[in-house]
Amino acid sequence: MDSNQTQWGSTAWHLLSLVRAQTPLIQCITNFVSMDIVANTLLSAGASPAMLHAVEELRDFTPGVHALYVNVGTLSPSWLPAMTTAAQICNTHRTPWVLDPVAANASAFRFEACRELLRLKPTVVRGNASEIIALSLDSAEPNSSASKGVDSVHESTTAVEAAKLLARTSGAIVAVSGATDIVTDGNRVVGAHNGVAMMQKVTATGCSVTALIAAFVAVDKTHALDAAVSALAVFGVAAELGMKMAKGPASLRMHLIDALYGLDEAALHSHVNITSLS
Amino acid sequence: MDSNQTQWGSTAWHLLSLVRAQTPLIQCITNFVSMDIVANTLLSAGASPAMLHAVEELRDFTPGVHALYVNVGTLSPSWLPAMTTAAQICNTHRTPWVLDPVAANASAFRFEACRELLRLKPTVVRGNASEIIALSLDSAEPNSSASKGVDSVHESTTAVEAAKLLARTSGAIVAVSGATDIVTDGNRVVGAHNGVAMMQKVTATGCSVTALIAAFVAVDKTHALDAAVSALAVFGVAAELGMKMAKGPASLRMHLIDALYGLDEAALHSHVNITSLS
Amino acid sequence: MDSNQTQWGSTAWHLLSLVRAQTPLIQCITNFVSMDIVANTLLSAGASPAMLHAVEELRDFTPGVHALYVNVGTLSPSWLPAMTTAAQICNTHRTPWVLDPVAANASAFRFEACRELLRLKPTVVRGNASEIIALSLDSAEPNSSASKGVDSVHESTTAVEAAKLLARTSGAIVAVSGATDIVTDGNRVVGAHNGVAMMQKVTATGCSVTALIAAFVAVDKTHALDAAVSALAVFGVAAELGMKMAKGPASLRMHLIDALYGLDEAALHSHVNITSLS
Repeated sequence: MDSNQTQWGSTAWHLLSLVRAQTPLIQCITNFVSMDIVANTLLSAGASPAMLHAVEELRDFTPGVHALYVNVGTLSPSWLPAMTTAAQICNTHRTPWVLDPVAANASAFRFEACRELLRLKPTVVRGNASEIIALSLDSAEPNSSASKGVDSVHESTTAVEAAKLLARTSGAIVAVSGATDIVTDGNRVVGAHNGVAMMQKVTATGCSVTALIAAFVAVDKTHALDAAVSALAVFGVAAELGMKMAKGPASLRMHLIDALYGLDEAALHSHVNITSLS
Repeated sequence: MDSNQTQWGSTAWHLLSLVRAQTPLIQCITNFVSMDIVANTLLSAGASPAMLHAVEELRDFTPGVHALYVNVGTLSPSWLPAMTTAAQICNTHRTPWVLDPVAANASAFRFEACRELLRLKPTVVRGNASEIIALSLDSAEPNSSASKGVDSVHESTTAVEAAKLLARTSGAIVAVSGATDIVTDGNRVVGAHNGVAMMQKVTATGCSVTALIAAFVAVDKTHALDAAVSALAVFGVAAELGMKMAKGPASLRMHLIDALYGLDEAALHSHVNITSLS
Repeated sequence: MDSNQTQWGSTAWHLLSLVRAQTPLIQCITNFVSMDIVANTLLSAGASPAMLHAVEELRDFTPGVHALYVNVGTLSPSWLPAMTTAAQICNTHRTPWVLDPVAANASAFRFEACRELLRLKPTVVRGNASEIIALSLDSAEPNSSASKGVDSVHESTTAVEAAKLLARTSGAIVAVSGATDIVTDGNRVVGAHNGVAMMQKVTATGCSVTALIAAFVAVDKTHALDAAVSALAVFGVAAELGMKMAKGPASLRMHLIDALYGLDEAALHSHVNITSLS
């Protein structure tokens, strides 16, 4: 193991330990499909999830959270004002917030909503290659129908340039999920290689890891790139450990959450696989 | 094993293989309870679920899907226009769509909503006996309170005539779940005998198998009866295989999804149990 | 084992047996995060859950249910009228109903909603110590931000006086979850000691046990304190049995539900741990 891996292992373990010690309160305005696994992911990692989404509650509640997670998976017009208002409150209070632009180019409505959210300066944006490429383009038109679904049709390595462009224009750390996850601040590019292919057969694993990024950013908002990379690595290592016992997607989901809960320093250090790509 | 079973095994395997190879995009406008297991069922079978329900997105998104699944389990007035609009778009594009009229007779509002959806020509309707009987009657009045719940109070075999009637009047393939699942086009009646009783103790297994029907219809819309029967058989066989390892409803749920993911040709052929009932 | 434990074991077993025999229909107007596990908890216990929440359906449906469960976890203004209307219908029909005031003091909006629901005379209220303390205070103002989250910051034993006060002013049986669960009618105080700490790492276990209380109250509405205590004990025993096989929060969730389904008289009697605290 090279010194770079050792350093990343230490960073990831440090941040996971902070999450476990501080139990950051993470407000999640996320899609219906993901709420159960997102909440269980955050709890297993040591964070405290809160799924409040009514605009009427945000002025009282959101100033007290340690991070906000916004996910547009089952977006509707009645939920968008809560997302934008909560993001604005976070900006006022210098609270980090993380955006998951699920299926960003599925419709013009959704694309515009994602662009509106991007203008509210998320700390981190995580999506698949199709989503990040779409958002990096300076166009309100959804692109080809071939990439309309929630599952990506691009390899994440092809999205590096798009991610760098989006990071520069939005000011966010941008993460692109794929066989290798890519994280960039617009200049530096890091590859997070942990994870297993079967995660794509478990719904809302992408939503869950984005929630975990929010928990990691909550405990170190001044190093958002490190936090995003570490969260992706921790979730990926938990998946690798869970995969050893899994017999299919449903048991992988269970073992992944169990492994995230029980993850120790030695296992994290021996599995973490992170490289500098530029 | 008689030749009929061999033929059905081949049909079911052929369609499952097509789902795995083509990864059809299935839009699901379904109830909140079922979203997680429906998405995981579709992913494990090889399909690509997308839970979009905002009316604002349908013109852009729905024309590109391979099938639509509508489920009224947690119906509210704000969701109904999306269901009808998406169904109309599917009809325009000759895209198959499948209806699960959960608790159709729970209220006059719900009953009328189901009737409105039926007039939009679903390719397949799957419900329990109480739901299908209620919908087959030419009446807007919900029937007795004894059948108001979401769980059926009729044996599915008593619903054969209702199913045939509903199939003839609606033009849909009608499937009735029960100890034996019944599928009819109004004339031909097929019985699908796979499955285990404990599935009734796992929420949204009915919703999930209807979603699987949508995935099967997506890959062969010209043989919707065969697709519906095959999906019921595949899901039932996965339940039988999962039941061998299950210690209760929650582990059955997990093992069923795992078994659906791993189902191979030999296991499907040796377990499939489908008969002609007329 | 003392005679008190034997008596409680018999009461809890009697009520669980009634739930299994009568399959009471439990309408759940609950939060999005909890719907799956709430439905599976009720099914595994023998009850029949129905997640209907549209105001348009309540006049037809709610009069036929055996109990109502209201949970404000993901409250929004559009859901509140359904909660209050359903509660009023239950009161008219002398149907028991149970309230889970999740994060009652997260916002003024939520606090007022909980107070409005309390005025509609729930049969049982179950919350954590922070929630019950907040509701027992004669103030519309949410208290300190330290207790704004959905997870309690008070030990339940410190909430006994608040619970008694709330029980007297509301007329409800009040249950406070914690290391020891406390149940009171305003005078008598009972402690239910079953359960495992890891349940706090599984989302919506509190929501689930409140739903189970609704099922138990449904089969014996004249002894709501006994029903609430019994449901807490049964769920706690299922967690203890499940914990023996669990490797983390996700497998605990599965084994808990399986154990609830399979719970037999001998295991319940040997594990139940209930004491009079006053």
